[in-house]
Amino acid sequence: MDFDRYDRIRPIRWQGDRLNLLDQRRLPFETVVLECRDSDAVAQAIRDLVVRGAPAIGIAAAWGLVLAGQSTEAADGREALARLGPDLARLRAARPTAVNLMWALDRMARVLAGAGADWRERLEREAQAIADEDLAANRRMGALGAALIAPGSGVLTHCNTGSLATAGFGTALGVIRAGVAEGRIARVFASETRPWLQGARLTVWELLQDGIAATLIADGAGAHLMNTGAVQWLVVGADRICANGDTANKIGTYAHAIAARHHGVRVMVVAPSSTVDMATARGEDIEIELRDQAELLSVSGLRTVAEGVQAWNPVFDITPAGLIDVIVTERGVVERPDPAAMARLFG
Amino acid sequence: MDFDRYDRIRPIRWQGDRLNLLDQRRLPFETVVLECRDSDAVAQAIRDLVVRGAPAIGIAAAWGLVLAGQSTEAADGREALARLGPDLARLRAARPTAVNLMWALDRMARVLAGAGADWRERLEREAQAIADEDLAANRRMGALGAALIAPGSGVLTHCNTGSLATAGFGTALGVIRAGVAEGRIARVFASETRPWLQGARLTVWELLQDGIAATLIADGAGAHLMNTGAVQWLVVGADRICANGDTANKIGTYAHAIAARHHGVRVMVVAPSSTVDMATARGEDIEIELRDQAELLSVSGLRTVAEGVQAWNPVFDITPAGLIDVIVTERGVVERPDPAAMARLFG
Repeated sequence: MDFDRYDRIRPIRWQGDRLNLLDQRRLPFETVVLECRDSDAVAQAIRDLVVRGAPAIGIAAAWGLVLAGQSTEAADGREALARLGPDLARLRAARPTAVNLMWALDRMARVLAGAGADWRERLEREAQAIADEDLAANRRMGALGAALIAPGSGVLTHCNTGSLATAGFGTALGVIRAGVAEGRIARVFASETRPWLQGARLTVWELLQDGIAATLIADGAGAHLMNTGAVQWLVVGADRICANGDTANKIGTYAHAIAARHHGVRVMVVAPSSTVDMATARGEDIEIELRDQAELLSVSGLRTVAEGVQAWNPVFDITPAGLIDVIVTERGVVERPDPAAMARLFG
Repeated sequence: MDFDRYDRIRPIRWQGDRLNLLDQRRLPFETVVLECRDSDAVAQAIRDLVVRGAPAIGIAAAWGLVLAGQSTEAADGREALARLGPDLARLRAARPTAVNLMWALDRMARVLAGAGADWRERLEREAQAIADEDLAANRRMGALGAALIAPGSGVLTHCNTGSLATAGFGTALGVIRAGVAEGRIARVFASETRPWLQGARLTVWELLQDGIAATLIADGAGAHLMNTGAVQWLVVGADRICANGDTANKIGTYAHAIAARHHGVRVMVVAPSSTVDMATARGEDIEIELRDQAELLSVSGLRTVAEGVQAWNPVFDITPAGLIDVIVTERGVVERPDPAAMARLFG
């Protein structure tokens, strides 16, 4: 397919001595680029959701370590690794649930541990490889996932899993891009994704840039939409996939998945293999990030809730493998995921 | 119970020559009263969501007809009914889904048809009776519903079904008020209820006025909340209940009900018998109001979505009787609703 036609946004741009991040908090109305000149700035940007989406967080963190290396003196990789310990720790701590963050930083640390005097160049090459491989993986997943969708289908997606959440093309949104390009997907619905409105602010905007008209719905309208027969697939990303196929993803995914099963709508999880965490047996073992309740008490900075009200703001939920029809990764597809099927591809 | 302690808000106040409505669009930060001096103003207020909630809409519309009568000359009720036809039609058309609106106006028209020269007094007495009976019904439903809840339970509610949505005390929120007062309900959760945020703006505020601490959650977090075991009941209101028990209520109710069944959380629908529409056989026969997509494109007047994006904005969804454990009305309780059980109470 013509990737450029269907993929115009690049949220993370490495500039040799700084990392430019498209500030996703300001989209869709302002295109503001935040320049990060050290790893603290990158960690802060991850924490503040300037950059979000599990793969994008991993890529940004890798570049953050490259920045830290530029201001560090060390004779070889082992010495650099010791000196960069605090930077690694701060980057790791920026978001607890996204496994790609740990995965990318582990990969960077491994390269560092084996590097000689050229450790700075090795780090930079590795960060670039992480980004390049992510884009290639997304294009591959797009093809694999789209092939499962019957022509003329409608799909519902949740949160933002597009170019904005990755090195480009997207995971679930990559499948949707490929499915639209191939004429398999006739209708795209996106749920708002409170509290941060990634669906409303980012997904429908991102698709519009590529000429794909997606219809926005309230999060609570997903079940009703499925009942109308307008969608045949729920297509979502993942922040972590366990060894049994249980999947952590944006809050609201689980509710959509239960409704999908109720209506015979199929559920597709799309994520690079770096999101698969075979060391975590099952969903109950995942720490669910609780964010500031203030995110539920205002919308776009405008207070909507009375003073004195408490809110509960889990950012992710767990969709058990039993509700997932297929997990699509760049390594291949796992249908009806369970520990054995997962181990065959990722063991 | 001490009703005054747990019920301090009155959104609809008849003033003899005008109807004062608490403008619910401005809550929780501003307490603004809108004075309606004719039926057009009341119809507009219903359409614009100044007053909302099925029972409150019916009561406001009844007072709207009283206002129309005050500026109409007619020798008796029959003549008045003919002259008030356009007012009745405009009031009826203000919101299509809420059956209480039709029920209240039908009741007013019947009184008018049988009235003599005293038709204006009869109209005013009937409107007052509708309001008084609603408050009494809510208190009765509160007792009936709360009796079903085991001590120490957690409940989740959706939208606003409280004093703001009724003549006072509320339907689902009346059960929650009674359940808290009786020590049966230990934890109350309220979902935001996009797009209009009735849960976030109204429900948690209204409960706070009565000293009840409710925890706000995103609509998409309901299933995850149920999975934690924190709630044993989903308690919601209704805009229309069909002859088979199928229930139209605020968009998002159906998704919560599916999740409730998935988790063994029980589902209680609370509504006055005026909400029961035995002339509508089943949910598929209900016209679902689609509102302006602009409601999804901004929050509290602030645009959040890019220009050019389309949205789908159904206001209600249908929860089939099979997902409802119990329907509570002032006439009694219907467990496991089906056409036979409904006919026994409402036939």
